[in-house]
Amino acid sequence: MSTPSAETEDRLDVCDPVAVARALIACPSVTPEEGGALDLLERVLDRLGFSVTRLTFSEPGTAEVDNLVASLGTGAPHLLFAGHTDVVPPGDSRTWRHPPFSGEIDDGFLYGRGAVDMKGGVAAFVAAIARLKAADRLPVGTITLVITGDEEGPGINGTQKALAWCADKGFAFDGALVGEPTCVARLGDMAKIGRRGSLSGTIRVQGRQGHAAYPHRALNPMAAVAPIARTLAEDPLDEGTSDFQPSNLELVSIDTDNSAFNVIPGACEIRFNVRFNTIWSSDTLKAELLRRIEDATPDGISTQVEWERPSEPFVTESGALADAMSEAISQVVGARPELSTSGGTSDARYVRAYCPVVEFGLVGDTMHQIDERVPLADLEGLTEIYGRFTSLVLAGGGGAAGT
Amino acid sequence: MSTPSAETEDRLDVCDPVAVARALIACPSVTPEEGGALDLLERVLDRLGFSVTRLTFSEPGTAEVDNLVASLGTGAPHLLFAGHTDVVPPGDSRTWRHPPFSGEIDDGFLYGRGAVDMKGGVAAFVAAIARLKAADRLPVGTITLVITGDEEGPGINGTQKALAWCADKGFAFDGALVGEPTCVARLGDMAKIGRRGSLSGTIRVQGRQGHAAYPHRALNPMAAVAPIARTLAEDPLDEGTSDFQPSNLELVSIDTDNSAFNVIPGACEIRFNVRFNTIWSSDTLKAELLRRIEDATPDGISTQVEWERPSEPFVTESGALADAMSEAISQVVGARPELSTSGGTSDARYVRAYCPVVEFGLVGDTMHQIDERVPLADLEGLTEIYGRFTSLVLAGGGGAAGT
Ligand SMILES: [Zn+2]
Ligand SMILES: [Zn+2]
Repeated sequence: MSTPSAETEDRLDVCDPVAVARALIACPSVTPEEGGALDLLERVLDRLGFSVTRLTFSEPGTAEVDNLVASLGTGAPHLLFAGHTDVVPPGDSRTWRHPPFSGEIDDGFLYGRGAVDMKGGVAAFVAAIARLKAADRLPVGTITLVITGDEEGPGINGTQKALAWCADKGFAFDGALVGEPTCVARLGDMAKIGRRGSLSGTIRVQGRQGHAAYPHRALNPMAAVAPIARTLAEDPLDEGTSDFQPSNLELVSIDTDNSAFNVIPGACEIRFNVRFNTIWSSDTLKAELLRRIEDATPDGISTQVEWERPSEPFVTESGALADAMSEAISQVVGARPELSTSGGTSDARYVRAYCPVVEFGLVGDTMHQIDERVPLADLEGLTEIYGRFTSLVLAGGGGAAGT
Repeated sequence: MSTPSAETEDRLDVCDPVAVARALIACPSVTPEEGGALDLLERVLDRLGFSVTRLTFSEPGTAEVDNLVASLGTGAPHLLFAGHTDVVPPGDSRTWRHPPFSGEIDDGFLYGRGAVDMKGGVAAFVAAIARLKAADRLPVGTITLVITGDEEGPGINGTQKALAWCADKGFAFDGALVGEPTCVARLGDMAKIGRRGSLSGTIRVQGRQGHAAYPHRALNPMAAVAPIARTLAEDPLDEGTSDFQPSNLELVSIDTDNSAFNVIPGACEIRFNVRFNTIWSSDTLKAELLRRIEDATPDGISTQVEWERPSEPFVTESGALADAMSEAISQVVGARPELSTSGGTSDARYVRAYCPVVEFGLVGDTMHQIDERVPLADLEGLTEIYGRFTSLVLAGGGGAAGT
C-alpha cells in the first residue's frame, strides 16, 4: 500500500483511472472546500490539451464555491460530461478501515471518500479521454467537462451557474453524460435516463389548545393527523408510467412540541416529501395534495401548507444517448443495463435544460458511508465504457441530433 | 379599594369570608412557597380554638413543603375539610387588572391569584365554622382541616402524606369535603361525587431510517401513526355509566425530530392521555390500549409503551354526603346541584382511600387565569352552604355512617 504525494504528480499516469482517482481522493475536498481537487484536475486536463476555465460563484448566505469548465476540440458534435469533486464529510475518520483521504488500495479495492461518488467517475472519464488521445482516436467535435465543487452542498453555486456561463459563451451541447454512481449491484446493471421530481411541504395544522380533561373546550389538531396521514401516505398517487415507477409520498416528520400530558396542543406540523413521475408537474401535484389535505381536515381545524422549492421530473427526450450508453456498456460487460428513472435527484435536472442527458457511473452501495470504496476492476471497466460511449456519441453526431 | 396589611390582621373578622380570603391572597404562596398563608391560617384557626399541627414533608428531588392539620371538637362524627393554600404562578403580573397578590375589590369582585382556586374556598370554610361557633351552634363531633401547600405542584409532599399522618394518629374520618372549585356557570350548579381516572403513556414507534428516495430500504415509522392515532382517538372506549361520561383519550403529541425532508425517520413518539370512568381500572385500560396499538401497527414496525403513574377513577360509595351537600346548596341557592364526576383529577383521589368524599366549591371559570376573581356574593353563599353542610353531616352522624 502506498499513498500519493505531490512529488509523484508529475509521474501521474492519466490513462490509469486508479492513479487519477487516488490523487483526487487525497484532496480533502469536503463541500465547500476545493481541497486541491480542482487544481489537480486543472493541471491534468491542461496536460491533455484541454482549455480550462475556473469559475468561482458566490451568493449572500452561501459559501463561495470553485468550479471548473474544460473543453477539448472544436465544433459539433459537442458532448458534455458533468460531475463533481466535492465529497460529503467522512464522519468519524477513526472508524474507517483506511483513512478517508489516504486513497489506500487493499484487496482489489480503492478506499476513500469519493471513491464512487464521484472522484472515481471523474477519474474514469479523464482516463478514457487520455486513452483516446494516446491512441490518436479522438473523434471530431468537442468534449467539455463541467466539474463543480457544490454538488453535495446546497447546489446553488455549482452546475446550474456553470451551465449558464457555458450557454452565455455560446456552448451548444448535443448530449450530456452525468457520471454519478447509478449501478446497484454490479457495474453496468443500471443507467439513468431521467429522474423523478421531488416536492416537499410542511403542513401547519392549527386547532385550539386546552386541558386534556376538558376536550370540548379545545380543538385537538391531532384529530387531523390520522386522516391527513392516511390520505397522503396510503392513497396511491398514480400507477407509474413505462419510464417511471409510481410516485411516492413519505411523511418525514410530525411534530407537536407539547411536553404536558394534561394539555391538548394548539398546533402541530406534518412534513412530507414526494418523489413523483412525469404524470405530474409540481403544480398539478401541489393542487392534488392541497385538495386531499383539505378534504381530510376535520371541521374547525385549519391547515396551511408551506412548500419547498420543487424539482420537476424528466426523462431524456431522445433515445440516441441512452442507446449509445447501452451499447457501450454491453460491449464492456456483456449485458445491456436497465434504463431507470429511480432514485434521488441529481445535477442531471439542471443539464436537461440544455440537452439530452444520460447518467451512468459506478456501483453506489458504499457512497456517503464509512469505508466508501470501489473495486479497481470497476474503475477500469467504467473507463472502457466511457471511452466507447464518447466515441459512439461523437461519431453518431451527438444525442438529440443523432439516430 | 384597600389592601390588607399585617397590622390589620388582629382586627380580621374571621366570620367574613371576604376578609379572610383577602388576607390569604396577600400571601404570595406560589407552590412550593408557603408565603405566609399557612402561618396566617394557623393564627386564625388557633383563635377559633382549633388545635393546629404544622407538617413539613420532603423527599429527594422534590421541594420541601409546608402543610397544616387542625382539629376542633372531639369524637365522632368526624368531618374532614381538605384544601390548599398554594397557588399557580400569576403569569405576567402587569397584565392583571389588579395585582395578583393585592386582594383588591372592584365592582363586586375580589381579584387575586387563588380567589377561586382555592383560597376563597378555604376562607369560606373557616368563616362558616367561625359563624357556627359565634352562634354557639357548633355540632357535636370533630372538624379537621387538612390544608396543603403542594396541590398545584407535584403533590408528593402534600395531602397524601398529611392524611397518612392523620391515620397514624388515629383520626377516623366519617366523611370529607374537598373545597376545590366545582361550579361551572353559577354557584351551586355542580358538586362532584367522584372523578375519572387519568392514564398517560408514550408510544415509542421504531422503524428503520433511510433516504426518502429509496423507501423500500427504510421502514417509515410514520406508517404506524395514522392507524394508531385512529384506533386510539377515534374508536370509543365506552359509552359512559350512570355516574360518568364516556372515557376519552386525547393524543397530546406526536414527535419525530427529523429536520431533513430527504430522510425517512427511524422512530417517532406518540403521547396520549386518557380520562376514564369506573368501567376500567388502569390495568384493564392498559391491556385494551396495548391490544389496539399492537393490532394497528404495520408489520416490521415495533412499538413500546411507557406508562406514567395512573390515577384510578372513583365514585363516592355512600350517597349521604352528596345528599347533605345537595340539601345545603338547595337551601342557599334554591336549586339542587348536578352531581358530576367530570373534569380533571383532584386531591379527592387521595381522600377517598379514608372515607366518602364530596367536592364543592366556587365557580372555576377564572382559575389559573389572568384576573382570577370571585364575586363577593359567591364567597358569602359558599360560606352559608359550607355551614349548613357541616351541620347536616355532623348532625346526621357523618357520611358512610349516616342516612
Ligand atoms: Zn455525487
Ligand atoms: Zn385547586
